[in-house]
Amino acid sequence: MAGNTFGSIFKLTSFGESHGVAIGGIIDGCPAGLSINVDQIQVDLDRRKPGQSHISTQRKESDTVEILSGIFEGKTLGTPIGFMIRNKDQRSKDYSKIKDVYRPSHADFTYQEKYGIRDYRGGGRSSARETACRVVAGSIAKQILKTKGIEVTAFVLQIGSIKTGKTYQELNLSLVEENIVRCPDADIANQMIALVEATKKKGDSLGGIIQCLIKNPIVGIGEPVFDRLNANLAKAMLSINAVKGFELGSGFAGSEQLGSEHNDAFKMIDGIPVTETNNSGGIQGGISNGQDIYFNVAFKPVATIFKEQDTINKDGEEVKMKAEGRHDPCVVPRAVPIVEAMTAIVMLDALLLKQTNRLV
Amino acid sequence: MAGNTFGSIFKLTSFGESHGVAIGGIIDGCPAGLSINVDQIQVDLDRRKPGQSHISTQRKESDTVEILSGIFEGKTLGTPIGFMIRNKDQRSKDYSKIKDVYRPSHADFTYQEKYGIRDYRGGGRSSARETACRVVAGSIAKQILKTKGIEVTAFVLQIGSIKTGKTYQELNLSLVEENIVRCPDADIANQMIALVEATKKKGDSLGGIIQCLIKNPIVGIGEPVFDRLNANLAKAMLSINAVKGFELGSGFAGSEQLGSEHNDAFKMIDGIPVTETNNSGGIQGGISNGQDIYFNVAFKPVATIFKEQDTINKDGEEVKMKAEGRHDPCVVPRAVPIVEAMTAIVMLDALLLKQTNRLV
Amino acid sequence: MAGNTFGSIFKLTSFGESHGVAIGGIIDGCPAGLSINVDQIQVDLDRRKPGQSHISTQRKESDTVEILSGIFEGKTLGTPIGFMIRNKDQRSKDYSKIKDVYRPSHADFTYQEKYGIRDYRGGGRSSARETACRVVAGSIAKQILKTKGIEVTAFVLQIGSIKTGKTYQELNLSLVEENIVRCPDADIANQMIALVEATKKKGDSLGGIIQCLIKNPIVGIGEPVFDRLNANLAKAMLSINAVKGFELGSGFAGSEQLGSEHNDAFKMIDGIPVTETNNSGGIQGGISNGQDIYFNVAFKPVATIFKEQDTINKDGEEVKMKAEGRHDPCVVPRAVPIVEAMTAIVMLDALLLKQTNRLV
Amino acid sequence: MAGNTFGSIFKLTSFGESHGVAIGGIIDGCPAGLSINVDQIQVDLDRRKPGQSHISTQRKESDTVEILSGIFEGKTLGTPIGFMIRNKDQRSKDYSKIKDVYRPSHADFTYQEKYGIRDYRGGGRSSARETACRVVAGSIAKQILKTKGIEVTAFVLQIGSIKTGKTYQELNLSLVEENIVRCPDADIANQMIALVEATKKKGDSLGGIIQCLIKNPIVGIGEPVFDRLNANLAKAMLSINAVKGFELGSGFAGSEQLGSEHNDAFKMIDGIPVTETNNSGGIQGGISNGQDIYFNVAFKPVATIFKEQDTINKDGEEVKMKAEGRHDPCVVPRAVPIVEAMTAIVMLDALLLKQTNRLV
Repeated sequence: MAGNTFGSIFKLTSFGESHGVAIGGIIDGCPAGLSINVDQIQVDLDRRKPGQSHISTQRKESDTVEILSGIFEGKTLGTPIGFMIRNKDQRSKDYSKIKDVYRPSHADFTYQEKYGIRDYRGGGRSSARETACRVVAGSIAKQILKTKGIEVTAFVLQIGSIKTGKTYQELNLSLVEENIVRCPDADIANQMIALVEATKKKGDSLGGIIQCLIKNPIVGIGEPVFDRLNANLAKAMLSINAVKGFELGSGFAGSEQLGSEHNDAFKMIDGIPVTETNNSGGIQGGISNGQDIYFNVAFKPVATIFKEQDTINKDGEEVKMKAEGRHDPCVVPRAVPIVEAMTAIVMLDALLLKQTNRLV
Repeated sequence: MAGNTFGSIFKLTSFGESHGVAIGGIIDGCPAGLSINVDQIQVDLDRRKPGQSHISTQRKESDTVEILSGIFEGKTLGTPIGFMIRNKDQRSKDYSKIKDVYRPSHADFTYQEKYGIRDYRGGGRSSARETACRVVAGSIAKQILKTKGIEVTAFVLQIGSIKTGKTYQELNLSLVEENIVRCPDADIANQMIALVEATKKKGDSLGGIIQCLIKNPIVGIGEPVFDRLNANLAKAMLSINAVKGFELGSGFAGSEQLGSEHNDAFKMIDGIPVTETNNSGGIQGGISNGQDIYFNVAFKPVATIFKEQDTINKDGEEVKMKAEGRHDPCVVPRAVPIVEAMTAIVMLDALLLKQTNRLV
Repeated sequence: MAGNTFGSIFKLTSFGESHGVAIGGIIDGCPAGLSINVDQIQVDLDRRKPGQSHISTQRKESDTVEILSGIFEGKTLGTPIGFMIRNKDQRSKDYSKIKDVYRPSHADFTYQEKYGIRDYRGGGRSSARETACRVVAGSIAKQILKTKGIEVTAFVLQIGSIKTGKTYQELNLSLVEENIVRCPDADIANQMIALVEATKKKGDSLGGIIQCLIKNPIVGIGEPVFDRLNANLAKAMLSINAVKGFELGSGFAGSEQLGSEHNDAFKMIDGIPVTETNNSGGIQGGISNGQDIYFNVAFKPVATIFKEQDTINKDGEEVKMKAEGRHDPCVVPRAVPIVEAMTAIVMLDALLLKQTNRLV
Repeated sequence: MAGNTFGSIFKLTSFGESHGVAIGGIIDGCPAGLSINVDQIQVDLDRRKPGQSHISTQRKESDTVEILSGIFEGKTLGTPIGFMIRNKDQRSKDYSKIKDVYRPSHADFTYQEKYGIRDYRGGGRSSARETACRVVAGSIAKQILKTKGIEVTAFVLQIGSIKTGKTYQELNLSLVEENIVRCPDADIANQMIALVEATKKKGDSLGGIIQCLIKNPIVGIGEPVFDRLNANLAKAMLSINAVKGFELGSGFAGSEQLGSEHNDAFKMIDGIPVTETNNSGGIQGGISNGQDIYFNVAFKPVATIFKEQDTINKDGEEVKMKAEGRHDPCVVPRAVPIVEAMTAIVMLDALLLKQTNRLV
């Protein structure tokens, strides 16, 4: 209810302020008897971590996850998986400058108004550092989905106004990790990198768009009406810091098509029902139809910039402020594993719910 | 869990197949002692009902709501509000033609696969008829929000490729109900009407975009992390039939802006913190900041068209099909009260949750 | 959250005031494709209904259930099952006498204080009339459990201080419906009937104890820690009007035993693990072990009596009151189907949750 | 859903196996701005910890809680409170003897059957060690309730067949901590201690009954119908290891009273409505009426005994077993803070929900 839990059967509850003792979480409802590779979780965390490339923040957060329960001799017990990541970068620095100032387009003001108190160190609970917990749960979910043949892959489609013109079918998604912006279109990736570097020099920041693909979803995943698979994916994406938009399949562009253009005709291939086109993005009536599920996620530019900005402080005085320290000019590449993680959590949760649709 | 409940405190659970005995719902968690105007609920239902204009379906569904409990002598009791709308258009027509055929881009195939059974009459549970229940709950929520000064207004921004170029600030939203497409830009509205008429003649269908505005949201609404106000709004919107996209504030376009352009500087006006711009769309860190909340919702074109289409049947045979009967060529104008309803439910629910943020 | 929903997967939400338009409910999460006998639901409702015998209230509530959705051609669709029972006994009688008086040991005072408003007619939402909705859902659950061999049977163990000395193994539970007090021990039943008749004449009322037995529970039902099967059964029972106590297996008496007496030794019979004794009542660590589950439920005497009582009114004045109309001197026999219903709901819900313990 | 979360607004999710790395939890929904004394949490943990007296197990578990988030400069942030207790007594002892043997009246068999895997070390997740997490959350809840004047106190009423004949009104509850069995009746306490010592010598074990009192509950706490305050208390109690029964107010004995004896007449004292008697145990219609809330909780004797017992192993063979190591002959005194903790969690959660009953 208070916002720190996601999912219904496979359920993540997370805790932690950016500069507190630790962040972490509990995954409840993970099915029993499944092999989990803890090293693989660390690989995903490393894809999210700060300081992974020269265009990313140089903060050194090692983000080492410690599994505290729920996995025994390499297998899930069916009991809650507790985990924790100590905050090692907790330098007792001087917060007096930002303590009472509301950074523009951050959550300082809204948290203070909502709770009457906030941990002002590094954004506290509102920091995107919290998303590391999602990556842990998502990595476990991805491993489990893989045993059913379901694969979740996200990549950067656009940074600023640099955008690949290719569809996911035209791209080779095995190349996503080949460059630091996680765009599998090499030429475009280079342009993106140049743009990020140039923007960083100006002390400004960038947004972008991530596309996520779910290959081989089983037919029949997603509950009807309010818990449509697309509705839960949309919620999952909009719950990520800096996300401003979500579109499934044809998305906003589809609003301009005619029904006769947009409809996905069914046909049979090798005895399996498939659709000629996939404007539906693999979901019909909120339920997966077996075709690829794909969607776009829009990220606004990073709110922390190194230019002087107008704002107010806690006492309602208008003041100037300018960021200090180390911050990403563009978080979109680092958000790729977060998008994958939230997608995998939604999918596994829905897959488990599907197991209750019929009495076995 | 099974998808037919929405909300956490102010919670709607709905039931009903399109051509069953009735549709209806239960609203639990409505605060006690509030005056509810039942006639106003009917007004909102009439805005959603089929057959309200010559461009809408000519099916005559009177959609008369009967309140069964929870309101006593005009006021809410704090107990669940049960309500029901009888399905009067239940003509025992011949369904043999469509019984076993999967209509393209409908949910016939996915429901059948998921449940192994479906009510094939008029789409059954997957029909948008179910949204009438949302309008009932939403109308109650809107009435309650209004007592706190919060107003929810949606309107049609775009149909097909006809789009108003004006912002909501430039439009006069009191004119939304003045035309049958619910676009407050009269010239554009006329173009939209002409487009719908022409498309109807061709037996084809259209999609479009609705914009929704929440005026005067109280500061501090929305829970952090997973239950961000924007995440819940996104889920609410994507849970509506035919919706493919959601964007808050600057949305997808904001991904191309620089941080220095996108950030909303705070300033004080008459002792109240406001922002210079509102790219955030009134929500920061998932919590309302007191500025207008606005977002766009993309609808795909209606799947039911009067052109012959390729599809398959239950036995896996490729067949041709063509819709019969009366169907809207464009549901976007009728979806305006649905968007408002879901928005109001999200807002009231979050407002009640906010009442638990501090001990009183 | 507001208290009108029970269950997690198989979930009942109910609505309705005693003398409002109707009571009813929505069952969400019922698995698809199961045959439901609607006549059997009516049989269970008739076991609960008032006026079924000369010792019961003579109010004539026909309690006819109307199924509104979710069942199609005799089978569950997997969609929500909406249902309704019209309140036919809604005589516009004069409530001025009781409108502002708080009946002792009823919920008039607490509802008024909690909500600042209440439907004073016949107890409104606090009336046990609401339990008819549980019987509807429970009857469906019982039918489904039966397909898995799980049988739920409750009976009256004690009324006032008249108690059968026999265990459920010594009783013939097929005789429960043979007498109007639903005690399968014929001699004791006659004594109970005599006691109820005598107490009725005095204008007083009685309580009693119901025992419930679950035969053939599948091993492994019940979630650990907070959602133990016994915890959910206890909640279910204490949620029934007038219930003051719950005990599983050895119960309160077991507190006086030694561990060596109380422990249930495992042994093998025909290759199946069984226990020599069953002090555990079929549940260990919150999970069914395959043995009979049995528990007792204590009901206080009916609060409505025909003797003058001291109480207060809404204005804080001390007044005298005396019940009028038709009321049961003992509700325990009529509560038997309610206990069965709530038990069946808990069991089916847990059985469905069990289907998510492993990935299939 | 998977059983490791309790509460709706003030919500505890716990994790951890008895001999894993750590146990811990997350408290979500704790209101913001409240002072929490972390030392007081440790005091409550020490009341629960093993080895606190000569009649308790001699295992040395220091049970030191580490708060990881949610409390900043001594006050709650409104964000989740993460906490952890390292398992220090994790001696890599030889489990080969018990690994495959199902201890009678323990959860070894049911966990193995349910999940197909279990952590056999010290009972794993089914161990009562998990209740330490409840004590942490409950201690925080008790501190918060105290600021509203609500006090929760539990004490031992009975061990084996030694029982105090005094009511809580006749006892001085400030003496609960004065003896090692936590019975405030000194003579009875001495008899209890002697019984425990004698039973320990025989290698056997004891159960007992705890009574819990909530002084000064605010009127109007508890939701109606399914989430009655008594229903939630019953669930909370039955979710504690070894609990077999719950009774509120008059409880099982009340079933033998007449309505005229049992009804609690209202009267006014100093302008405040009170009841002459309190057979209702402070709750009517599931909602607190302002009188003392009191209830009894029955614990079965400890399942671990040092006598040889018959049982079976994983391969379905009948075997003999006998406990080794250090185990409590009676856990009832150590369960007192657990009962208080669960009671406080239920009360605070219901108090917060009450804040949503009306729009403020």
